Amino acid sequence: MAKQIEIICIGNELLIGKVTNTNAQWLAKRITTLGLSVNRVTIVSDNVEEISTAIKEAAQRKPEFIITTGGLGPTFDDMTLEGIAKAVKHPLRVNQKALKMVEAKYRKMVEEGRIEKIELTPPRVKMATLPAESDPLPNPIGTAPGVLTKHNGSMIIALPGVPSEMEAIFDDSVAPLIKKAAGNATFFDASLQVDGIMESDMAPLIDRVMHDNPYVYIKSHPSRTGEGQPHLELHLSTTAQDSDTAKSRVSKTLVQITELAQAKGGKIKSSKIK
Amino acid sequence: MAKQIEIICIGNELLIGKVTNTNAQWLAKRITTLGLSVNRVTIVSDNVEEISTAIKEAAQRKPEFIITTGGLGPTFDDMTLEGIAKAVKHPLRVNQKALKMVEAKYRKMVEEGRIEKIELTPPRVKMATLPAESDPLPNPIGTAPGVLTKHNGSMIIALPGVPSEMEAIFDDSVAPLIKKAAGNATFFDASLQVDGIMESDMAPLIDRVMHDNPYVYIKSHPSRTGEGQPHLELHLSTTAQDSDTAKSRVSKTLVQITELAQAKGGKIKSSKIK
Repeated sequence: MAKQIEIICIGNELLIGKVTNTNAQWLAKRITTLGLSVNRVTIVSDNVEEISTAIKEAAQRKPEFIITTGGLGPTFDDMTLEGIAKAVKHPLRVNQKALKMVEAKYRKMVEEGRIEKIELTPPRVKMATLPAESDPLPNPIGTAPGVLTKHNGSMIIALPGVPSEMEAIFDDSVAPLIKKAAGNATFFDASLQVDGIMESDMAPLIDRVMHDNPYVYIKSHPSRTGEGQPHLELHLSTTAQDSDTAKSRVSKTLVQITELAQAKGGKIKSSKIK
Repeated sequence: MAKQIEIICIGNELLIGKVTNTNAQWLAKRITTLGLSVNRVTIVSDNVEEISTAIKEAAQRKPEFIITTGGLGPTFDDMTLEGIAKAVKHPLRVNQKALKMVEAKYRKMVEEGRIEKIELTPPRVKMATLPAESDPLPNPIGTAPGVLTKHNGSMIIALPGVPSEMEAIFDDSVAPLIKKAAGNATFFDASLQVDGIMESDMAPLIDRVMHDNPYVYIKSHPSRTGEGQPHLELHLSTTAQDSDTAKSRVSKTLVQITELAQAKGGKIKSSKIK
């Protein structure tokens, strides 16, 4: 089985629809491009039980990585580390390496004249209070470090919810780990825009092409043209053990599906290989 | 315990980061406004096992509603109904009411001269093949009906993945059911934009205000002003059994947190009660 990743996004603001979950999409796209697959995304509330349960459930499915977003800040409802600690049954402790990272952030603010002195208040120390045997991941943008905890063969990685901080820690500290786990595995995709053919007419053709090309996944997304004609986007993708294989599989499939769509009366509007 | 809802979004395009999950946000916002709470969102792939497992897991948590999006169309990888059938242990059968709905869509296309004759091909009949003892929900925009299946005290509602179709079926057929389940319960929220105070300094104040106002949830979202100063958005929300109670709880809390933020040196930029 391919090495897989689960994403767990933590935050009430996601469950009341206040914000769009752009973090999950950003991570899913980046992880796919790096050659691993995301097999589940879960959103839970800022609640220790909910967080801990979601992490335990994910861990039972034995993914290579479990990546969480949100809940690492200084406020009482930032509960991700408490949830991870509970799930992996490690006590929470002040991590000296993390504390130095947090302290350095406030020292910099003093140097910049933004605050008067470094006060390591309880909410600030909280950001350096990690499950035992975890490692902090430097946050180049904000204050709260990311956190890496190994558990039953999975790496649990906690990232902040603020997108710029989440992305920066991912790129600096997480992407290299995923790239290493993926080896040469490469994701490759292509898309085809077709007018004038209904999804229900295209369905048996897609079926045939996927049967002939078992490693390529084809998904159709129906909509309408401005004139009310049926429009289909066909998206072809594969992950292969090297990039030549991935590219040749997708290219061969694209040619076959294009010919069949045209034979069925579809008008090809555009075709894109990434 | 408040009546709760789980959302399950089905689609590989969400797990490779090709599209943003706007459906989950739209549904979460609408459901919250109607007075119920979303307690979990799960994204799984177009795979019968994954779908069925996610539904069984959600059902065990006994939510009032389980709402799925995606996977109702005519192609082989539209597997939501097969996944639900497997989870609730009902066989899939052609549903005559659903078949009439699908047939009516193609009859309309014939009348409009868009197709020549009504052909109920297997991919089209598939859209009317529902778990036994389910009811189809009319789709005012597209072809595939929504589906309602009762199971162990939960209502499982399957909606299409195309946003316009999902929203139309929700508004016509699902919102009234949720409104009824919610009774007079009302969600109410407010937000406060504050400059010049760090989240770690605000944390103990939020803690105190939430202690004084146990039914109001306050969440802080930190960012920076253009000049690099700390900026905080404080979001206050509650769900109460009637709208007067909800409004007075949030208003009282807003006044208290505003006073404390100002006393701590924060500059109130704006305050919004919805």
